[in-house]
Amino acid sequence: MKLSRLGEFGLIERIRRSVRKDPAVLLGIGDDAAWVLNKTRSCLITSDVLIEGVHFNLKWTSLFDLGYKTLAVNLSDIAAMGGVPAYLIVSLGISPKFDSSDIDQFYAGIGSLATKSGVALIGGDMSVAPRWFISACLIGHAPFRPISRGGARQGDDIYVTGTLGDSALALNLLRKKVKQTPPDVLRYLLSRHHRPTARLTTGALLAREKLATAMIDVSDGLLQDLGHICKQSRIGAVIRKNDLPLSAAYRAVTGLNNPIHALTGGEDYELLFCARPRNRVRIEKLSKEVGVSITRIGTCVPQRRKVMVVDGFGKRLEIRSQGHDHFKKTIRR
Amino acid sequence: MKLSRLGEFGLIERIRRSVRKDPAVLLGIGDDAAWVLNKTRSCLITSDVLIEGVHFNLKWTSLFDLGYKTLAVNLSDIAAMGGVPAYLIVSLGISPKFDSSDIDQFYAGIGSLATKSGVALIGGDMSVAPRWFISACLIGHAPFRPISRGGARQGDDIYVTGTLGDSALALNLLRKKVKQTPPDVLRYLLSRHHRPTARLTTGALLAREKLATAMIDVSDGLLQDLGHICKQSRIGAVIRKNDLPLSAAYRAVTGLNNPIHALTGGEDYELLFCARPRNRVRIEKLSKEVGVSITRIGTCVPQRRKVMVVDGFGKRLEIRSQGHDHFKKTIRR
Repeated sequence: MKLSRLGEFGLIERIRRSVRKDPAVLLGIGDDAAWVLNKTRSCLITSDVLIEGVHFNLKWTSLFDLGYKTLAVNLSDIAAMGGVPAYLIVSLGISPKFDSSDIDQFYAGIGSLATKSGVALIGGDMSVAPRWFISACLIGHAPFRPISRGGARQGDDIYVTGTLGDSALALNLLRKKVKQTPPDVLRYLLSRHHRPTARLTTGALLAREKLATAMIDVSDGLLQDLGHICKQSRIGAVIRKNDLPLSAAYRAVTGLNNPIHALTGGEDYELLFCARPRNRVRIEKLSKEVGVSITRIGTCVPQRRKVMVVDGFGKRLEIRSQGHDHFKKTIRR
Repeated sequence: MKLSRLGEFGLIERIRRSVRKDPAVLLGIGDDAAWVLNKTRSCLITSDVLIEGVHFNLKWTSLFDLGYKTLAVNLSDIAAMGGVPAYLIVSLGISPKFDSSDIDQFYAGIGSLATKSGVALIGGDMSVAPRWFISACLIGHAPFRPISRGGARQGDDIYVTGTLGDSALALNLLRKKVKQTPPDVLRYLLSRHHRPTARLTTGALLAREKLATAMIDVSDGLLQDLGHICKQSRIGAVIRKNDLPLSAAYRAVTGLNNPIHALTGGEDYELLFCARPRNRVRIEKLSKEVGVSITRIGTCVPQRRKVMVVDGFGKRLEIRSQGHDHFKKTIRR
């Protein structure tokens, strides 16, 4: 049914009926505000905006994946604090030319990940708009002391979960329409781009065990996000290029020695954190327990040295920053 | 400074520095998520979207007023539940042609009302966008059992705070550029449109004293919002046209007997609620205590009678619904 026929209130009712019941949600969609239980003494709140043409392109992004990713990127922020996600608010601007089944697909994408991650959709707002935009707000419980960006110290190790650069590489392939990528490689990279995995268990365990001194999720690219930790912790950082975790698919596409997407590509949604060297064994053990690879990629140094990348001989690689917001860097060899 | 020069992170830093400190905010703007104290066992969460060209027009709306109203409309939703507002998240889509001083004005508008209402700005997200859009999420404490839309019963009285229709009338004057309106009348109506007053104290006291059986704020027009109470409470309603509270300014512009904006105009942000007839004296007393007029305008009736408006002789006024979302009604005499 066309949205212009179903109307705002019909659409809200349709979404309300599709939402899973949660006993902690005392009043959900359909009142002036949602009313929910607080399960810990404090809570975590994060928010992300996704705009058509800026953050996504509907040519190669399905509405299901868009819904999935809307929740995933917010889950990743809660993971980066060591929190437990709970309640989601989603506000939409939609062109009225869309059909209600399109919107169903979007909410099915949200619902699919919400069920897996124990999140309840509790409300939002919607309006007509010339282009799609999505604004989501996720509220999480804080059973452990949250990990900020500001606690790293000189001498700390720097770690990252999973692999880096897959998502940026996928976007690159989508934009350039490269045909010769092997199908299984392409499929893997696209899944990393469209359905990122928030590292919730890893983040919560790092908080519970007090292992991370500072943490952030990699959304704008490793170097830029590491820069936020460095600024808030007043330290510098040295990253060892050869230690960057790259997937087999990444290596298959870029060759063996091209870390550019891993260093500056965005949307990895992996956890980047610092930890005292004395905790190396405990972090290795935690990695095995949760089944998520955690790789030591660098060291915290005095602030004056800023963020730098070195090769296998300890030689500094010149990194040119491009643009002023989303650091755009190229590596010259 | 042009936003394109200041950049996203410069802008966030600028906003962060302008925000008032609040001891309940353990981590505010500038991390992956905000970390705040829960002061009650449950909380209230509401969300509103404002889009340029749909909800506001920058021709006649200053950015200060836009910021003020962004918070005000969300406060009104928390008021309609009987809650206490606490934490605000604001996400923006902004055209990069704007100057940082424009954005300062917007946040000054938010800050001015935030200080008055005890609200802390704790985060958000921002992005370039072809037109302004604002998505806000407000979290409130719930010291008393919240008042939903679903508890009204047949025989309950229907009340509204303040006066109705001023905001819609102001918008009408702005659109038509009517020149002959007396300046003080125009000033009053415009202030009602640009800087609505959320009825927070009244809402919280109604919740504390358990006086309201159902409550909503009037944002889409009295009849439409009353329709939501009727639907969720499974009742009908009779509104007495002659009892509608109209301001002197409203009467000055429309003449004595034209309730169309009061019945169907939006953005009043007054509280509409139902209460048992035995509580009339207590409600009158509460109204005097908080210094906000509360007017009894109708009665809850069986559901089959739906929402109707009657004149001084009890004769039903024919109301034609126009449009399908935002009920547009005209009264024929």
